[in-house]
Amino acid sequence: MLTPEDLRVNGERLNQALAELARIGVLDGGGVCRLAFTHEDAAGRDYVEAWMRTLGLAIHIDAIGNMLGVREGTEPGPLILMGSHTDTVGTGGRYDGSLGVLAGLEVLQTLNDRRIQTRLPVGVISFVNEEGVRFMPDMMGSLFMRGDLATDEVRSITGIDGSTIGANIDEIAYAGSADFTALNVGAFLELHIEQGPVLEQEGLTIAAVDGVQGITWIRFSLQGATAHAGATPIAMRRDAGYVAGCILQFARQLSTEIKGQRATVGSLTLEPNLVNVVAEQATLTVDLRNPDAAQLQEATDRLLTFVADCAEAEGVSVTHEILVDVAPVTFDANLVAIIEQSARALDLGTRRLTSGAGHDAQILATKYPAAMIFVPSVGGISHNITEYTKPEDVVAGANVLLQSILRLTH
Amino acid sequence: MLTPEDLRVNGERLNQALAELARIGVLDGGGVCRLAFTHEDAAGRDYVEAWMRTLGLAIHIDAIGNMLGVREGTEPGPLILMGSHTDTVGTGGRYDGSLGVLAGLEVLQTLNDRRIQTRLPVGVISFVNEEGVRFMPDMMGSLFMRGDLATDEVRSITGIDGSTIGANIDEIAYAGSADFTALNVGAFLELHIEQGPVLEQEGLTIAAVDGVQGITWIRFSLQGATAHAGATPIAMRRDAGYVAGCILQFARQLSTEIKGQRATVGSLTLEPNLVNVVAEQATLTVDLRNPDAAQLQEATDRLLTFVADCAEAEGVSVTHEILVDVAPVTFDANLVAIIEQSARALDLGTRRLTSGAGHDAQILATKYPAAMIFVPSVGGISHNITEYTKPEDVVAGANVLLQSILRLTH
Repeated sequence: MLTPEDLRVNGERLNQALAELARIGVLDGGGVCRLAFTHEDAAGRDYVEAWMRTLGLAIHIDAIGNMLGVREGTEPGPLILMGSHTDTVGTGGRYDGSLGVLAGLEVLQTLNDRRIQTRLPVGVISFVNEEGVRFMPDMMGSLFMRGDLATDEVRSITGIDGSTIGANIDEIAYAGSADFTALNVGAFLELHIEQGPVLEQEGLTIAAVDGVQGITWIRFSLQGATAHAGATPIAMRRDAGYVAGCILQFARQLSTEIKGQRATVGSLTLEPNLVNVVAEQATLTVDLRNPDAAQLQEATDRLLTFVADCAEAEGVSVTHEILVDVAPVTFDANLVAIIEQSARALDLGTRRLTSGAGHDAQILATKYPAAMIFVPSVGGISHNITEYTKPEDVVAGANVLLQSILRLTH
Repeated sequence: MLTPEDLRVNGERLNQALAELARIGVLDGGGVCRLAFTHEDAAGRDYVEAWMRTLGLAIHIDAIGNMLGVREGTEPGPLILMGSHTDTVGTGGRYDGSLGVLAGLEVLQTLNDRRIQTRLPVGVISFVNEEGVRFMPDMMGSLFMRGDLATDEVRSITGIDGSTIGANIDEIAYAGSADFTALNVGAFLELHIEQGPVLEQEGLTIAAVDGVQGITWIRFSLQGATAHAGATPIAMRRDAGYVAGCILQFARQLSTEIKGQRATVGSLTLEPNLVNVVAEQATLTVDLRNPDAAQLQEATDRLLTFVADCAEAEGVSVTHEILVDVAPVTFDANLVAIIEQSARALDLGTRRLTSGAGHDAQILATKYPAAMIFVPSVGGISHNITEYTKPEDVVAGANVLLQSILRLTH
């Protein structure tokens, strides 16, 4: 007789579903564009709802379009929840978000196929607007479920194209009457692609994600003085570009000197940006991430001090703006252990990892036990039409999700 | 009786002429736009020609529009020449170039007013297209006079707006039959604004310019790999932006370690230039200047080695292109001494200086004795509508030019 430990998802069916969903909003070259609250986004959600319906789930939709499908257990007890999102960035891939939703449905399909009754109810949720590309903030659906946002507040948000979320929701007719803010959730598990290179480079298949790094984004505006590159002695310069270069190097220094620190200057522009003119202005951003709040603060403090000193020495004035400041999140230790045990029981190469990117799970984690499972991203590439995760890794991740759910619900 | 040493230009008349010429192609805010071979450029040259005519000069125009006015001496001997250019950059000022031409004419006007006969002939030349903004190369008129360029070659050059110089010359009807390539020039003196901050900051009025720095422009293209700023450990990055930052700092290092060296990164762009994405590509330029050819070469060699090593260490590939490579020029020692003596005899604060910018005088210097006189630029600003030189400094420069010419022609 088949024991629960032997249960596996239908990998072919899951990969087929990923391919089918990827046809909605398909881009040349294989990418996907389903920006939140567009008709493509709605069509993607329709695909999910249709599968929920064939599974016989009880389907609930809240006022901004978060969609929950519930498979009853033998006891009413807390809901064991899986899920992620199906909206994408403008040039997205087929795995980011979609994997967590479709793998959840595949887990329930597997339970249906084997006529397995769980003690606790199991559900899949598809959050709206995780990406936050068209309408800020990102992770909007999970923030709404956590109770951080009111319906009217969300509906009045204006997007980059000038329309409001409310008008968009009415246009696509994707609002329900459910309220998830008081939902009794026993655990939330989100399967996701890593969107980074660590698993691939270490030859591993599964990460039991133990938390999400804190994020601080700082934009610096440096004001020096324009000067002729030939006619102006170095000592008489107030070179905003030079100060920017010092910041680029200091960011790397922080990354090596502070434990767990990642610092990135991804964006930098010079004015007037001419070969023979000393830069009058430089604008650049520093992206700081650390799993530890105190260390993130140390990195921020050291950076601000360094920039002030360096700018002063060059006679350049500096202002800064904190664009993003999100505290680190630690996932539920018990859930992380269950994921790890499930992966090892499946003989999958596994490690713990702290997510560098933001996810719905980090929002729910402050209210419910939550954790994540990562599978490898080829080349570490995501938010790109070449985003790719091998079919066998998709299946491995879904089986870890299945086994973890079984441990949580039996 | 007035001795030659007591002779002075009419400063009011010269500043008035600068103001009148600045009305041709005037920009809001006081700047000037007389891009080469446009109708505005032609109108500027008409202004010069009209003054030449009232002075009774013999006027000669060559095939691309260089215009020479000659005042005969008592002997036929070599021509003592002054001049510069009246074309401007797109947002130019009223002094760059124009000062050298108009001050030359004011010197001849002063000789006329006082009925002074010089032993040698004295001339003023107005070169076409010194700026090279609309049609490359810059310093085209003096290159043509030196014999580096053929007429057909110049006429077939296509500008940034798609038209040829030939079509433009025909349109503005500014071509003559003179040939200056075999002209017997005894000396060329160019009065110019410094376009840098040195004279102003040192409280001096005159620089006897002893040469022009060599210039090397290098464009680096760095190719790394895009990566998520949160999900990608530092050791797994191939960050083109980080390498760019190292180059920015190394440029400054070269400037302090190599005698007379100036190194500037004025232009830098990152791709995709997003706050949370490691830069896949960086394109930047380094402007290297040194009065000494061997030291300029050393700077170039050290920079190329550094960039190759730094890029390799980061796993970033690099290509480079030499955009400009102009050897340093040393001006005629006798002429520089005459300028210095003339300035000191006028009790003007004087120093020697090596020009950081390119000028027509450096082209002629390889064929004839040549040198330059600099007067202060307020704030070191040039190629900008706020370019300004005090009226008294304009007059001081013109008097040094007059006294130097008298020493050369008596």
